Amino acid sequence: MSNTAGQVIKCKAAVSWEAGKPLVIEEVELAPPQANEVRIKILFTSLCHTDVYFWEAKGQKPAFPRIFGHEAAGVVESVGEGVTDLKPGDTVLPVFTGECKECRHCKSEESNMCDLLRINTDRTVMLSDGKSRFSAKGKPIYHFLGTSTFSEYTVAHVGSVAKINPAAPLDKVCVLSCGISTGLGAAINVAKPKKGSSVAVFGLGAVGLAAAEGARISGASRIIGVDLNASRFEQAKKFGVTEFVNPKDHDKPVQEVIAEMTDGGVDRSIECTGSVAAMISAFECVHDGWGVAVLVGVPNRDDSFKTHPINLLNERTLKGTFFGNFKPRTDLPRLVEKYVNKELDLQLEKFITHEVSFSDINKAFDYMLKGEGLRCIIRMGA
Amino acid sequence: MSNTAGQVIKCKAAVSWEAGKPLVIEEVELAPPQANEVRIKILFTSLCHTDVYFWEAKGQKPAFPRIFGHEAAGVVESVGEGVTDLKPGDTVLPVFTGECKECRHCKSEESNMCDLLRINTDRTVMLSDGKSRFSAKGKPIYHFLGTSTFSEYTVAHVGSVAKINPAAPLDKVCVLSCGISTGLGAAINVAKPKKGSSVAVFGLGAVGLAAAEGARISGASRIIGVDLNASRFEQAKKFGVTEFVNPKDHDKPVQEVIAEMTDGGVDRSIECTGSVAAMISAFECVHDGWGVAVLVGVPNRDDSFKTHPINLLNERTLKGTFFGNFKPRTDLPRLVEKYVNKELDLQLEKFITHEVSFSDINKAFDYMLKGEGLRCIIRMGA
Repeated sequence: MSNTAGQVIKCKAAVSWEAGKPLVIEEVELAPPQANEVRIKILFTSLCHTDVYFWEAKGQKPAFPRIFGHEAAGVVESVGEGVTDLKPGDTVLPVFTGECKECRHCKSEESNMCDLLRINTDRTVMLSDGKSRFSAKGKPIYHFLGTSTFSEYTVAHVGSVAKINPAAPLDKVCVLSCGISTGLGAAINVAKPKKGSSVAVFGLGAVGLAAAEGARISGASRIIGVDLNASRFEQAKKFGVTEFVNPKDHDKPVQEVIAEMTDGGVDRSIECTGSVAAMISAFECVHDGWGVAVLVGVPNRDDSFKTHPINLLNERTLKGTFFGNFKPRTDLPRLVEKYVNKELDLQLEKFITHEVSFSDINKAFDYMLKGEGLRCIIRMGA
Repeated sequence: MSNTAGQVIKCKAAVSWEAGKPLVIEEVELAPPQANEVRIKILFTSLCHTDVYFWEAKGQKPAFPRIFGHEAAGVVESVGEGVTDLKPGDTVLPVFTGECKECRHCKSEESNMCDLLRINTDRTVMLSDGKSRFSAKGKPIYHFLGTSTFSEYTVAHVGSVAKINPAAPLDKVCVLSCGISTGLGAAINVAKPKKGSSVAVFGLGAVGLAAAEGARISGASRIIGVDLNASRFEQAKKFGVTEFVNPKDHDKPVQEVIAEMTDGGVDRSIECTGSVAAMISAFECVHDGWGVAVLVGVPNRDDSFKTHPINLLNERTLKGTFFGNFKPRTDLPRLVEKYVNKELDLQLEKFITHEVSFSDINKAFDYMLKGEGLRCIIRMGA
């Protein structure tokens, strides 16, 4: 039993005081977890585009000071009242979207869009009392995505915390709490390509490469990577991408290029850019009769997806996914288990291109802003 | 063995000499079936909107004189060279779309869009030699959809003929060769509503009512019928429709009305009108997380389906179907078998609202033009 249970903890956190300005490692105070909350000692965290997007605060309502971070692994330090599923010492992944296990979505076999704990980028405080658990210099510091993992300790709702096998390598599996699972799940849970089939992946960033990895694991024999940046192809080969199409190299729409390459279209496509033009291409490049297109990338607010209805009537399927259709508390532990037991040929190390100590967290931001690498692991211990 | 095998048959057919003009019962000559063709004695046929649409020839290239008709049941009279799956005396349904059993679509478990024999409304002659088998007054008469069932005898490609249980009541199952299977299959093969679920059906004509019947058979507990014509509701109740929404009665989009009625949206929707506005509503009225919208109705050539991509990303699925995803030769015989054995609570008699003798075939057109009833059976024998 932790001797800090029930106490305010003083610890280090990387505080973002202003939009776009370097984070500052500060001593913060962290209140104990309230009912249905847990306090977690973070061991590893990684940086995702979503952190950077809200840190830049372009086009959203800024909320500062804030502690970002939502891909992480750690150990439960203490639990609040009513928490029975977790206990101090449990190994966990905090997740940006939750699973209350009570709502219609959680009770549905198909949905992971929990009514209570679904991702909410506008929420800056804890759900139960509308307050922050963090403070520094006497001022409250806002939470981010209910996780705020750029801190030695954080507090999260129990419904946003997945208990995993303690034998898992936490410096690897921490990336499963967001982007990698999103792309991987889009392939293995939603697109479900058959052995020997063809898959087009639009966008070869971390999410798209995770989708390619999922297609490779599923046994797809042709994985066509589509990206406007040709320099991404070499890296993509490691994730199973067998062919590359740069829409800039062609006069005709990329869906026509792909249809010609594949005798009428690919069996599956997965869109990971968020560009509505890419979404339309991803849909229209699947084969009639059986093709399935899966949308992953998040579009702009005013975008409109357009297609001729005959493209649907010719027996194509279009669907979207959120977090790869993984239910965070139910499915992530199983995914980690399969990874640990090597039941799944998932090579997480390929996604981890950089590693920094917590004090160098701003370097992780620099790598991402320069488009260098895929995931940078931030070691909290050192 | 038929003693007419290999001979030209003289028989009565309802010839459409001019667009929109009453059919004329004529004595026609019908050549014997060539390689991979069968000649069928038609016993019952029924009238579908598609016949009327091409008979009116508004907006298409007219092809006259022509023998329409594509919903029918009959008995094989003789077979051409190379036909091994069928023999004289077999009970069959000619179908407007075929199954060659050799192409990628036929070999796929999912598709019924045969490369060789997929519906082709422009084709007016037999596939093998580009000639018509029918003639009258020395002039060739065009075929329609490879079936031309408004004739005592017709010739069809073997791939467009489903062999069924001879014990089936042919004056009922003849309606399974087009619209009724289209709606029924959209529900039971594609939308697949679960027991106790909610389904919205857009358009309460024969196809929509067949979709409702399929939803009822699947155990859906709420079936919401959507139609601009309120007079259709009474009849729709017989097909399991439990609630009715007329978009004209509301100031807000019908998808919002349905979402309010169903705590966020229906589990499944099936669009059977072909109006692109209805398609958009049908998609946007399904629940996030698990909702599936199925498009059945055929749109205009220049329509565009539009929606905000977030509607997809919130885990909705949009798919289209053709002929209810039934493979004509593989699946229709099984469907008939289930109907005969009462394994499926399919009440075909509800669709049959009129019956006329062959000599009164123009009455069937009158009923349809007036919007009276659902299906009119045309008895060839009398």
